[in-house]
Parts: sequence; structure tokens; C-alpha cells
Amino acid sequence: MTDRIREFLRNRREDGPCVVVDLDVVRANYAAFARALPDTRVFYAVKANPAPEVLGVLAELGSCFDTASVAEIEMALAAGATPDRISFGNTIKKERDIARAFELGVRLFAVDAKAEVEKVARAAPGARIFCRILCDGAGAEWPLSRKFGCDPDMAADVLEHGHRLGLAAYGVSFHVGSQQKNVEAWDGALASAAAIFEECALRGLPLSLVNLGGGFPAKYLQDVPAAEAYGEAIFRALSRHFGNHLPETIIEPGRGMVGAAGMIEAEVVLISTKSDDDAMRWVYLDIGKFGGLAETMDEAIRYPIRTERDGDAVEPCVLAGPTCDSADVMYEKDPVLLPVSLAIGDKVLIEATGAYTTTYSAVAFNGFDPLRSYVI
Amino acid sequence: MTDRIREFLRNRREDGPCVVVDLDVVRANYAAFARALPDTRVFYAVKANPAPEVLGVLAELGSCFDTASVAEIEMALAAGATPDRISFGNTIKKERDIARAFELGVRLFAVDAKAEVEKVARAAPGARIFCRILCDGAGAEWPLSRKFGCDPDMAADVLEHGHRLGLAAYGVSFHVGSQQKNVEAWDGALASAAAIFEECALRGLPLSLVNLGGGFPAKYLQDVPAAEAYGEAIFRALSRHFGNHLPETIIEPGRGMVGAAGMIEAEVVLISTKSDDDAMRWVYLDIGKFGGLAETMDEAIRYPIRTERDGDAVEPCVLAGPTCDSADVMYEKDPVLLPVSLAIGDKVLIEATGAYTTTYSAVAFNGFDPLRSYVI
Repeated sequence: MTDRIREFLRNRREDGPCVVVDLDVVRANYAAFARALPDTRVFYAVKANPAPEVLGVLAELGSCFDTASVAEIEMALAAGATPDRISFGNTIKKERDIARAFELGVRLFAVDAKAEVEKVARAAPGARIFCRILCDGAGAEWPLSRKFGCDPDMAADVLEHGHRLGLAAYGVSFHVGSQQKNVEAWDGALASAAAIFEECALRGLPLSLVNLGGGFPAKYLQDVPAAEAYGEAIFRALSRHFGNHLPETIIEPGRGMVGAAGMIEAEVVLISTKSDDDAMRWVYLDIGKFGGLAETMDEAIRYPIRTERDGDAVEPCVLAGPTCDSADVMYEKDPVLLPVSLAIGDKVLIEATGAYTTTYSAVAFNGFDPLRSYVI
Repeated sequence: MTDRIREFLRNRREDGPCVVVDLDVVRANYAAFARALPDTRVFYAVKANPAPEVLGVLAELGSCFDTASVAEIEMALAAGATPDRISFGNTIKKERDIARAFELGVRLFAVDAKAEVEKVARAAPGARIFCRILCDGAGAEWPLSRKFGCDPDMAADVLEHGHRLGLAAYGVSFHVGSQQKNVEAWDGALASAAAIFEECALRGLPLSLVNLGGGFPAKYLQDVPAAEAYGEAIFRALSRHFGNHLPETIIEPGRGMVGAAGMIEAEVVLISTKSDDDAMRWVYLDIGKFGGLAETMDEAIRYPIRTERDGDAVEPCVLAGPTCDSADVMYEKDPVLLPVSLAIGDKVLIEATGAYTTTYSAVAFNGFDPLRSYVI
């Protein structure tokens, strides 16, 4: 909660829930990453929050951009990034989207399978590819499935396949899992990356890049290590596995860049109990899982919630959204502590909601508007 | 899959995934409900699919509308429904939204708590209220939480509270769980409803209405009972619990009305395996959990998937969406059987996707457009 956001909310004309993003926090986070990993280029993960103002500020600061679609590439370009500062980081791309990215000047593509390599070779001849490898994601709060990446043993084959088709086998990427709180999580993946570098070198394919991915956390309920701690641990792991031949590195922070910069203001619509002898209160807000808080799925991300009555006695409450969908319940297995004095019509502030909120919200589920966003 | 949808898809200019809804199926479903429960009024659950064409056809056929928000009330009115055919069925309403609905002529409101009753009494003086009660949802495929409804023991108090504040205590509602395949599921809730009618009568508050809710299934992979079977079972249960004094009844079908009317056409973007010795194929489509298939959450709803290669040998595949989100995996615990011959670029048809798809889709997650919808 920054003074600028507080001031903005004091003056806004109420019109339902909204998120407010403070660009000063984005600037400070960018500076912290740049300081913590001085030899590493920052590729902001546009999907975390593609607001033009956020992209504009980051472009100006010198950030590069990790994009998931042609639309995100166009947004990064519109914000002032040159195409050499853009990576098409989605391993799942239609061939016509690869062609469009190539037309727009993008020359760096993620792959994790030979079939994807073939599409890139046809639609983006000569481009650089990096191969994403699987990583176990232990220590991360947002679930990491096996969806992206191939087994490290397969990476050299994938890259060599690209080389034979005229692409530049450029490097390796991985992702240690979103909201990763273990600063040592990069170590195992870097060991795998170093082995792939070695294998490729033996095949006459010297690699250059290690894409360290994202995973840098935002502070929600619990404290998280500072950017410096990540920088130091990653540098140690790089030295351990690559010795004096440090590769070119990039990181792709999304949540870590914008999460803490945003705050949602919502309203209490109803407080009730299910029966006279059930002590558990249900607190219903005008925002829920379908209005921007999709990351509460399985109660994965636990946002700090502030009210005007903080300091009063608290009790556990189930927190739910406003839609007619039974699944639109945010915290029930592990209820939230809210003031007993909380009342219908009260405002609540949901902190650290600058990432993965606006674009996650449903178009018009139950007739509710998507989450409004203000960038200040 | 209807001939009209097949014909439409043959002629459309490709522009990414889309859902096509055939109004003939909606008409047939409406007629089936009207025939199965001739003395019951149909309140279509607008949230299932609020396309103006769908609402227009249903308004013309005489349907009433169950709405979740002021926006949905406005859509129903725009489609030609008079306000006396509209119920504000969300138990979680802002007082200003109740006031707006009242201004628009709506006089029927759902409640499940005294605090909600007080809002309705202030903002919609004299209106009719029905109290939603909890129901266990056994036999339903889409999870039913304790989010909506109060314990049946509390319902008479809630209704009496409304009466004292000048509202008309009008009835009881419940929901047996979405995609409910047990035609007997209404029995237990009707027993509770009858007990509440009795208790209210003793308090001098004769009730009129039993809102039987939704729950009527669409046919996905498995066969589901026909509307007649539901009609007969519900009529038997009504007679069992209300004897000769049958209450006025309404149903709120959503999925059962439009689910089977729609079909999504999507494209295979990538097929890969995670390693050379892993037999499990991953099939990535250009639509996923954030593009309209949110109900695949926890693999709850299993849509039938058709390809042009059906009939070829099949093998189990993990099915995932196109976004850079690890959670955007649809069927993994229980993979889908797809043809071994399936290839990148193939079209797949996802059947029975007329309900809870368009409005569930994210605004622009990863830069992807929301699901396109065509109503024919």
C-alpha cells in the first residue's frame, strides 16, 4: 500500500472493484533486479500485467520483454521496445503466429519439442532458439505442471534438430515455479543446463544463453527473500556449474516485477452465517475467482487483506466472490481472519494484486464487468 | 453436432477458436422442459449463455429469466422479457443493485440471510422473496459448495424477518448441483421445502413458490436422463411431500437449455512428448481453461472431443491449452483418448459447449482474445 495508491483511492469515483498499480513500485522493482543480477538482462513477462503504462515504463528503463502471443509482441513494440528486445517465450505457437512474429522482427523463440522446432524453422528461418527443460518446481506456491519443457536428456536432440534445419541453437531455459521462495531452487536446473551446454559443445553446437525464467516472488502474507538474495544464490549456482565460462543470462520476472505494485479495492456485499449455531461467517466481496482473483484457485495464492477496522478483534471467515457459481469461493479450507466488526458496504484492500489479475478476469461472467485497472 | 453447425463451420473464415450455438437445439430443449414439467414455469439461467439471440428466442417462446446481476436483468429486458418474468436469483447483491432492479420493475428476489433481507426491504419495498436453502449436491458433476443457501432450519426465520420488514414471504429455493444426473436428487430438498412451508404456515405466512433450481444436465461423454425422467421424478417428489396442495413451481435450467446447443471448433497447436521414453503424448489446443473451458477445472466437466480422424487407433493424451500458465491443463489425471494419427493443424470439435464457456473466458490472458461466439 503506497501513499500514491491511498491518495488515488481517496479521490476516485466509486464504480465497483478496481486494481490500482503504482509505477513507482515497478521502477523500484526493476532497479532491484538490475542491481541484484547486474550481468543478466531482464525480460519482463508481459502476461503478468500488460498495461501499456507498465510496458512503457519498463521499455524506457531498458527492460526486454518475454511474450506469450503475437498480441503481446505488438504491445511490447507499441510500448517502445525494439524487436531484438523481445522473446517469443511460449513453447506452444501456431506456425502463422511464428511467421507474424518473424515479420515483426522477433528472432528469439522458445521450443521444447522437435515438432515446434520444425514450425520455427519454416516460419522464422535462421532464428535463435532456446530449449525449455522440465524442472520440478519444489518450493513454488503456484502449481508448476509438466506442461512446459522436455526432459533435460532430450534438449540436445531438440536443439540439434533446429541446427540441422538452419536455426541457431542458442541456449536453454527453465522455470523454477512461480512465487518461488527458495533462493536455491535454480541450482538443480543450472546443473542440468550446464550438462546440456557440454553435450551440445561435444556435438559442435556451442550454446550461449541460459534463460533463468521467472519465479521471483511478490510479498503476500509471508515475507519473501529480497532480490539480492536471489541474485547471490543464482550467481553462486552459475559459478558452481559453469566455472569461469559464465553464459549469457536472462531472467523473466512477472509477479516479482508488478505483483507488489498493485492493490485491489473491493466492497463487502454480504456477511452471513449458514445457520444459527454455525459460528463460521461467510464474507462475500464484489470480486472473486472470476473477476480477477483466479490465482486463489485451490487457495494457492493468499493475498493480504486489509480493512478499515484492522486492530479490532478478528475471527476466521470464508471469503467468496459475488457470482452465482459455487466454485467462486476463495478461501474456505483455510479461512481468513477478518474483524468481527466488519460490515456490509465496508471497503477491503487486497494487497499485492498487480500481477495475474486484470487479464485473468472473465469477460462478463454473470454479467459482471472485468476488473477495472488504473495505473498511476 | 447439428447439420447447421457443420454447415456454418464449413463456410466460416478461420480466425481462431469459436463456439457455434444452434438456436434450433435451444428451442427443442425449451419445448422438452415445458412438456416434462407442464405446470412449472421455466426461468432460464442467463449466466449459462447470455447471447442476445439465445435470450431473444427464449423470450419469444415464453421463458422467464433467472438473473445474477443488473447487467443480466437489462439483457433479459432487451430481449423482450417483461420485468414480471425476471427473478434476481443471486443471493449476494449490493443494495444499489437491488434498488436498480426494483426501478427496472423486478419484484422477485432470492435471499439466504437476514442481512440480505434487510437490503431487499430497504431497496425493493414490498417485493417477493424466496429463501434459498442448502442442499448436499450429491450426484452432481460441477462442485456445489456451501456458498449459497442457509440451513433449512433457518429459512422460516429469514422469511419471517422479511415479512416483518414489509416484504412478501413467497417461497423456498434450492439447487441440487449442476449437471445433476440423479433424477431423484430433488426429493430430499423438497422434503425440507415442505417442512418450511408448514412452519411458515404455522407462523401465519402461507408460502406459494418452490423454486426447483437448475441442475438439469447436458449430455457430455455419458448419457443423461431425458427431461421427461426429471419431470416425472420431480412430480412424484412434489406429490409425496406436498400431497394435494402442490405449490407453484419454477425451474432454472441453464446448462440443460444451452449446453448441448453449442460446439467449439479449436485447432491442434502442438503435439509432443516430454522425453523419448515417455509414451504419453501432450496435445495442445488453441483454447484452454482461460479461453472458455474453465469448467475443466479439477477435470470436473469432461467434454466429448471429435476429430477428423475418429475411427483411427487411439491413445491416451494429456490435453492442454495455449497459454503460458502451468495450470492451463485440461485433462491430465484422466487423459483423453485421441487418434494416434492426430496432427498439428488439425481441427478438433469440442461438443456440448454452449453453456458456461463464452462468459467464463478471460478478457485477454496472455494476449489471447476471448472466445468468439456465433449464434445461428
